Amino acid sequence: EQKFNPVDHPHRRYNPLTGQYILVSPHRAKRPWQGADETPEQAEDKAYDSECFLCPTNTRVSGDKNPDYADTYVFNNDHAALTPDTPEAPTPDNPLFRSESARGLSRVICFSPDHSKTLPELPVGMIRKVIDTWNEQVEELGQEYIWVQAFENKGATMGCSQPHPHGQIWANSFLPNEIARKDDNLRAYYQEQGSNLLVDYAEAEMADGSRTVVETEHWIAVVPYWAAWPFETMLMPKTHVRRMNDLTEAQRDDLAVAIKKLTSRYDNLFKCSFPYSMGWHYAPFFKEGDTSTEHWQLHALFYPPLLRSATVRKFMVGYEMLAESQRDLTAEQAADKLRALSDVHYRETTT
Amino acid sequence: EQKFNPVDHPHRRYNPLTGQYILVSPHRAKRPWQGADETPEQAEDKAYDSECFLCPTNTRVSGDKNPDYADTYVFNNDHAALTPDTPEAPTPDNPLFRSESARGLSRVICFSPDHSKTLPELPVGMIRKVIDTWNEQVEELGQEYIWVQAFENKGATMGCSQPHPHGQIWANSFLPNEIARKDDNLRAYYQEQGSNLLVDYAEAEMADGSRTVVETEHWIAVVPYWAAWPFETMLMPKTHVRRMNDLTEAQRDDLAVAIKKLTSRYDNLFKCSFPYSMGWHYAPFFKEGDTSTEHWQLHALFYPPLLRSATVRKFMVGYEMLAESQRDLTAEQAADKLRALSDVHYRETTT
Ligand SMILES: O=P(O)(O)O[C@H]1O[C@H](CO)[C@@H](O)[C@H](O)[C@H]1O
Ligand SMILES: O=P(O)(O)O[C@H]1O[C@H](CO)[C@@H](O)[C@H](O)[C@H]1O
Repeated sequence: EQKFNPVDHPHRRYNPLTGQYILVSPHRAKRPWQGADETPEQAEDKAYDSECFLCPTNTRVSGDKNPDYADTYVFNNDHAALTPDTPEAPTPDNPLFRSESARGLSRVICFSPDHSKTLPELPVGMIRKVIDTWNEQVEELGQEYIWVQAFENKGATMGCSQPHPHGQIWANSFLPNEIARKDDNLRAYYQEQGSNLLVDYAEAEMADGSRTVVETEHWIAVVPYWAAWPFETMLMPKTHVRRMNDLTEAQRDDLAVAIKKLTSRYDNLFKCSFPYSMGWHYAPFFKEGDTSTEHWQLHALFYPPLLRSATVRKFMVGYEMLAESQRDLTAEQAADKLRALSDVHYRETTT
Repeated sequence: EQKFNPVDHPHRRYNPLTGQYILVSPHRAKRPWQGADETPEQAEDKAYDSECFLCPTNTRVSGDKNPDYADTYVFNNDHAALTPDTPEAPTPDNPLFRSESARGLSRVICFSPDHSKTLPELPVGMIRKVIDTWNEQVEELGQEYIWVQAFENKGATMGCSQPHPHGQIWANSFLPNEIARKDDNLRAYYQEQGSNLLVDYAEAEMADGSRTVVETEHWIAVVPYWAAWPFETMLMPKTHVRRMNDLTEAQRDDLAVAIKKLTSRYDNLFKCSFPYSMGWHYAPFFKEGDTSTEHWQLHALFYPPLLRSATVRKFMVGYEMLAESQRDLTAEQAADKLRALSDVHYRETTT
């Protein structure tokens, strides 16, 4: 009888953070591709673009003028998905028509004045400024809101409508689905095992090594065992850290190094400006003083869509939307490919 | 004090089928769009394409030759995501590294010999053949597998790599995430309310009308109250029907009419071959005789990505992947737009 081998045989892996499975079909990477080609994403070539709404000194749609900023610059999104003063919605009387009012706000963070430099091409010192800005914003908005989502959509493929390198912060008066679900799963593990799920997981991955993409003094980035997107990664501190605010200076400096290495490997994979959505998860700002957050661990998630080249992406469509996420290579195969590359960006390599 | 108004104020709606919320930001539809443009999808113009793997009499990648078929044609996918004979995976010893072997198979259903006619442009009699084929396939594979997902990815935007109108069937030895979750939620409602969630819901929507897009003698299609995708719809029978097999002849004939009207409205919205992923949910084929399926109701889901025009889509990216699905118009606004259109396809209108 044949023995099970994860490199040849379809299987499902369990994501303990979401409680969801991923269907892994490793043999499927061989099929020919005749579908849509993406436009390969390349970095912008000029450091300043007079037409850009985010470049220093330019005027935005709102009529506001950007200052001549030197590192990061934060402003309120002119087309926010949330408003801070939403009136209360009435209580629904039918359980099938339930809604609640949502309060919040959204801000844009320009990562640097340079129109042409995405995270991997910024100097480590500038990435450190981005980290400090994320931290300041999350701390400030966490005073008022239970959840503050810091994220970046990079590349037109990921719905980014602005090539100037930037991220967003959406603050919420509610715990969004993904955070509520993660809170439940992390808490249940803590209660059952008496330890922190993601601290245990980082230790297991450091011991194993087969899914590790970047390891620095204080951080580890892996293609998670349960990754859904082809080159998905999770970036975690090596010690227990509930929120960015709890990081030491050394951990922050080293985070800038880890981000530069991870995103450089991404760009090096298909020699393009690698599209992704990334963002941070950490302990929510529960308002009741007695809600413990011992089960939480700070971590960043990177969800890149590309599968085989700068132009062929993975589509999470029919089966995936209706039934279950599916991937065409194992997490270990993806990690191997990323690990085989240089962690110096291909445009920074001196010859 | 301001009164809450769902057309102006951000709010969250609860999806009782998934237990997830959707963030609705109706005021956001006004923002300018500078991001990626999709290529508008147009129907193919020739009825037969000698290069097409799915046209009658042509040879596929596998070397197999298609018969000269007259209505639908089904074959095993040459690059299936699942295999019927996967060996058992060993039981994991660490709860963080859980996997299980997955068995199944996947088939392709050509909807008609005509290379150029997608569902809305097929005659009602041919759509009825597609319905019969879905039903036969689901019944046959349900003998062996607990779940059989029938779906269609339409358009390159939805990862479709083959313009010849076709759908797929993936059979699974496991209950996929979305079905397991829906089974839990439908069962819980049945236990609490003593009635079937989707039967109650169809009745409430028929009484209300504000989200109805198509209503025929036996079927109703609505933009669900909790829709995530801009023009998402759900198509439901008006009576309790657990699976396609339980439909009467009259309900089947009328389903073909309902599908033709619904998909014609979709194409008419932006005068293009409207991309979507669609698929069927129904009572799983539980193997133990004692698992009741009284709480289940047959229904089809349509997830179309377009938002504002044939070229501007909704991206479910950063915030949506990391936190919560978000939409830019209310379900009622979307239904209004679809209802305002003709249910006769724009290419079939005689002048
Ligand atoms: O099987 P196809 O049509 O080649 O592939 C398409 O549908 C599948 C099922 O939804 C997806 O996994 C693929 O990403 C998509 O490109
Ligand atoms: O706010 P932006 O960058 O215009 O918009 C982008 O990110 C948002 C948050 O993930 C999404 O809701 C939009 O669909 C996407 O186009």
